[in-house]
Amino acid sequence: MKIVLVTAFEPFDGEAINPSWEAVKVLQGREIAGARVVTCQLACVFDLALQQLNAALAEHQPDCVLAVGQAGGRAEITVERIAININDARIPDNQGKQPIDTPVIPGGPDAYFSTLPIKSMVNTLREQGIPASVSHTAGTFVCNHVMYGLLHALAQYPDAASGGFVHIPYAPEQAARHPGEPSMPIAMVTQALVSMIAVAVTQQQDAIISGGTTH
Amino acid sequence: MKIVLVTAFEPFDGEAINPSWEAVKVLQGREIAGARVVTCQLACVFDLALQQLNAALAEHQPDCVLAVGQAGGRAEITVERIAININDARIPDNQGKQPIDTPVIPGGPDAYFSTLPIKSMVNTLREQGIPASVSHTAGTFVCNHVMYGLLHALAQYPDAASGGFVHIPYAPEQAARHPGEPSMPIAMVTQALVSMIAVAVTQQQDAIISGGTTH
Amino acid sequence: MKIVLVTAFEPFDGEAINPSWEAVKVLQGREIAGARVVTCQLACVFDLALQQLNAALAEHQPDCVLAVGQAGGRAEITVERIAININDARIPDNQGKQPIDTPVIPGGPDAYFSTLPIKSMVNTLREQGIPASVSHTAGTFVCNHVMYGLLHALAQYPDAASGGFVHIPYAPEQAARHPGEPSMPIAMVTQALVSMIAVAVTQQQDAIISGGTTH
Amino acid sequence: MKIVLVTAFEPFDGEAINPSWEAVKVLQGREIAGARVVTCQLACVFDLALQQLNAALAEHQPDCVLAVGQAGGRAEITVERIAININDARIPDNQGKQPIDTPVIPGGPDAYFSTLPIKSMVNTLREQGIPASVSHTAGTFVCNHVMYGLLHALAQYPDAASGGFVHIPYAPEQAARHPGEPSMPIAMVTQALVSMIAVAVTQQQDAIISGGTTH
Repeated sequence: MKIVLVTAFEPFDGEAINPSWEAVKVLQGREIAGARVVTCQLACVFDLALQQLNAALAEHQPDCVLAVGQAGGRAEITVERIAININDARIPDNQGKQPIDTPVIPGGPDAYFSTLPIKSMVNTLREQGIPASVSHTAGTFVCNHVMYGLLHALAQYPDAASGGFVHIPYAPEQAARHPGEPSMPIAMVTQALVSMIAVAVTQQQDAIISGGTTH
Repeated sequence: MKIVLVTAFEPFDGEAINPSWEAVKVLQGREIAGARVVTCQLACVFDLALQQLNAALAEHQPDCVLAVGQAGGRAEITVERIAININDARIPDNQGKQPIDTPVIPGGPDAYFSTLPIKSMVNTLREQGIPASVSHTAGTFVCNHVMYGLLHALAQYPDAASGGFVHIPYAPEQAARHPGEPSMPIAMVTQALVSMIAVAVTQQQDAIISGGTTH
Repeated sequence: MKIVLVTAFEPFDGEAINPSWEAVKVLQGREIAGARVVTCQLACVFDLALQQLNAALAEHQPDCVLAVGQAGGRAEITVERIAININDARIPDNQGKQPIDTPVIPGGPDAYFSTLPIKSMVNTLREQGIPASVSHTAGTFVCNHVMYGLLHALAQYPDAASGGFVHIPYAPEQAARHPGEPSMPIAMVTQALVSMIAVAVTQQQDAIISGGTTH
Repeated sequence: MKIVLVTAFEPFDGEAINPSWEAVKVLQGREIAGARVVTCQLACVFDLALQQLNAALAEHQPDCVLAVGQAGGRAEITVERIAININDARIPDNQGKQPIDTPVIPGGPDAYFSTLPIKSMVNTLREQGIPASVSHTAGTFVCNHVMYGLLHALAQYPDAASGGFVHIPYAPEQAARHPGEPSMPIAMVTQALVSMIAVAVTQQQDAIISGGTTH
């Protein structure tokens, strides 16, 4: 049976929860489109998160990896297109580290594209009535760090698993303390993850659907 | 038994649904905090909406009136503080009328404050983990028109019912066709309405909590 | 010769300048459309600002009054349509006062519409290539306080001067310390004020041009 | 004498002007920090723009290249950090081409980092009171296409010129027809370009200053 590894983060930036983990943890052991889901919580800490991720890759040998993180301020499920080889932390991570313009992987390429069918994932969510878009930046904090590290790890193997990253909005209970910010209920995020996993597991080629921006 | 009249709108601006009516219609006949809910759908048409509203006021003699409308683009439940005596339609209403700078009620005062405990309503929602804020403009379309007409009607009676207006975000299935826009599930809006009705029915004085903006 | 009183504010909220005063002070004594400009800086302090304003009204007996204030975060010149009878301070004023839900004028009406030709002012600016829009809320801080107090004072006299309020963006040097925020150069704001004063002095009736919002 | 090539675009998306060209064209022949400026207007057309760019590179053999483009909706000068190997056009280009998910350069790496001192450029502008930020996406339209093509061309030579891309806001006369949108006067953009060129020509190493985002 295929294995899908789904990672999420611990809380950061003073939040009591991280909605990525709340939405992901209930998927542990779930079977989706003929694949078994394994979940893993990552620290919101540079380098340590990648050590945890690499350990999970080694342990579970997944066929597909979906990393999930919180993007407070975004209104939709955003499927990231690309990860870049830079750490540039606006705020300290959960161990107080705040790297500026260091590489995620010294000597690595400048960026890696997601190898998930991102357009199909977005399209499927929209058809199901769940707001979603392609995003062209995962930032320069631990989320991008994990996405880059994941795609770098997967790229070392010719028959590598597919992998990518999805950002999710604040949960409503978080947005209730950030006036004006958009939110999405955790149950809807879980539902979106199930749909996206099904697409990722079953579909090799991405759909040719516009998801671009003029800038 | 006290009567609470809750109004909402038919779809407008090309939408297939109006989330205000989807969230409100399930409350018909519900008992909340010792009050009976009566619901009423209004046309998204200048003047006609007020005729329908006034007919509902005459028929049900409510003790409290909560009018609800869609505010596509807002991320939270927004409780309106004030209605103004102006119609200024950016788009045509559902009968093609597009008044510019006409009064809602000729000779009426420039504005009416909501007589609901708006700060307590917002505060209660936030405590329940539902994003909410006070709003200082209900726009100049049919929503403001109905809020002004409602408060003008209620102001004619010394022991008048309390009344006000609440704007709600797009439903997720609407936002899924408006990339980038925030949303709130209809079930969460209904839950918020129940909480706000309970506050409105049971609380005479508003809480003294900051809800202002510098501009 | 007609007299136009143009007021602006001292800096607040930790800013080194208030762009409203920077843009206004250079107009002192200027003749625009046959009217003489008198300028006045107001404290960013509840009640004190109105005492200063009322003293200026008594001294100069203006035919037209344009009050100007900073709206950090707005991208355009925004001509306010209405002032409301509420003080609700999100931040303390320059004397540390932070009123919540008190009236500007006890017993005053809920709101006053601007008596300036707001649509014509916006339209003129747009024709000149200066971004501008009508705004339906001046907030609940000292700007709205001054606009309400001004219109209340003018309403006491049958042949009253016309009056209203204009919000302006951050100056670029302010926005340079608020990443992501829009700005407008002070010289362009001054140019906009000259154009708006000319419209306000020469035009009795406002243009019938849509400037509304659906919410 | 060093040569700095500064490119900008023709108008697109229905605009009468492209503020990038308006700001750039006045720099033709100007000497900045000991370098001579050569300017070049590019078509807003996939592939054709790169042919024009490559011709200009071959003709002028520049030591430094700054490509400039319009980002309607952004409020600041945004210095791009990275270009990605994808064309994904939300709107047709000026020849009606609308590629979806094609590579800029088949077989090229996924992305190239700007080789300009982007943090120093942003920092210098902020010190001069001009709003500026680092951007992590140049979009997927002709701007990103040119930035990627430029960095790919420069990467073919060991002692290559440095190069990168800067996005600029709408000019005020454009924003005046897009209510709510931010703008920056063309003269201020030109001033910003002069400052950025001086930094780019004289400074080899970038400053270590945070410019990151959490997402």
